[in-house]
Amino acid sequence: MMHLFFCPDMESGLVNLPEEEAHHATQVLRLAVGQRIGLLNGRGTRAEAELVDVSRKRCVAMVLESVDHPAERNARIHLAVAHTKQADRFEWLIEKAVEIGVDRITPLATMRTERGRARVDRMERVAISALKQSQRTWLPQIDPLSPLSDLIAEQLPDQRYFGHLDHLSIPFADAYDPAAHAVVLIGPEGDFAPAETGMLLVNGFVSVTLGQSRLRTETAALAACAWMSLRQSG
Amino acid sequence: MMHLFFCPDMESGLVNLPEEEAHHATQVLRLAVGQRIGLLNGRGTRAEAELVDVSRKRCVAMVLESVDHPAERNARIHLAVAHTKQADRFEWLIEKAVEIGVDRITPLATMRTERGRARVDRMERVAISALKQSQRTWLPQIDPLSPLSDLIAEQLPDQRYFGHLDHLSIPFADAYDPAAHAVVLIGPEGDFAPAETGMLLVNGFVSVTLGQSRLRTETAALAACAWMSLRQSG
Repeated sequence: MMHLFFCPDMESGLVNLPEEEAHHATQVLRLAVGQRIGLLNGRGTRAEAELVDVSRKRCVAMVLESVDHPAERNARIHLAVAHTKQADRFEWLIEKAVEIGVDRITPLATMRTERGRARVDRMERVAISALKQSQRTWLPQIDPLSPLSDLIAEQLPDQRYFGHLDHLSIPFADAYDPAAHAVVLIGPEGDFAPAETGMLLVNGFVSVTLGQSRLRTETAALAACAWMSLRQSG
Repeated sequence: MMHLFFCPDMESGLVNLPEEEAHHATQVLRLAVGQRIGLLNGRGTRAEAELVDVSRKRCVAMVLESVDHPAERNARIHLAVAHTKQADRFEWLIEKAVEIGVDRITPLATMRTERGRARVDRMERVAISALKQSQRTWLPQIDPLSPLSDLIAEQLPDQRYFGHLDHLSIPFADAYDPAAHAVVLIGPEGDFAPAETGMLLVNGFVSVTLGQSRLRTETAALAACAWMSLRQSG
């Protein structure tokens, strides 16, 4: 299978691979001039190119042909998930969500979120490698760690949910409308604080459950993501 | 929250915690006589007990009261998944599938399965800790690494699917009937071999897709699991 490289600034003609990708091509894979490679810009374009200049410092490819792919979904999927204490759990979520299909991931800082900083650069690397692995063309947007109040202040889709362990919550599977853009919030271990759930309800978020059992934050986020993606493709 | 311990052979009266659980209780958590603990037998029973004899060698608890929980689903979910080269990916799948809800997991040996042995003992430990974490009472059955032909020779539910990257496959989301027991097979990297898909079709397995993109084995298995679980709870 053709090696794929991520190249956000791709035009026709000659392209310089980003430093990390160039290093992987030349130092790890040891690709040489003449080698055919695939290029993804993460915004729908997939190109076939040929390496024309390879050195320790740089890796230049000539685009032979490129195809623009439409967005993968009619309705956008936005996951906003309380950042987890263990960064690897959140990075795992990103890998899986990118494979299954998601448009935007926001690591949330909530009142009960364990501190521990979100390494967005690492998250983006994980997303890019999942993009290549799953042969997708659209890279989801990955936000920096955002306070819940900042996210709510945004222009969000009308279809808004938050996972909540409450007997009044309705099943997410019944509530989700695959025809409309959606934003789904998943809280931290210990759930959203009452002040937060109040703010969410006031702002038109619907409280939903993802099954009867207690799910880890990243598990709940992935279950919701899988449901939405399969509802749209099903 | 009360510490939970797995205790498969639990009757009323006095119970000896299994060695690993006893070690965790006494050496890690340093629980003492008089401590209240929770016990799970993995077959629906959850008991509250009190430690009555604690030594380096053993940990004995007196069951105070126990509750038998019915099975969590009307229709059983059986995942049979090609074993992955990286054991941690399969163990991760087990953790997540137990959280989301599954009744049986079979690690499959297929023609294209990377060798590398399946550590069922480790898988069971992962399943037990996920059981406790998700506050469930039923532990899924985890099979040893099984050849595909052995699984097919079993008495399996009538609702049978296998994930397959084929244009003739139908969307799993449309096919799955949450009212009936189901077995879902997920192939290895590189998919099932033609001889295997032939054997599956002959044996009444329906070829399904889990969305348009190429999913890793464990990701496909988890997406199918989440779909089935949410269809039953939704």
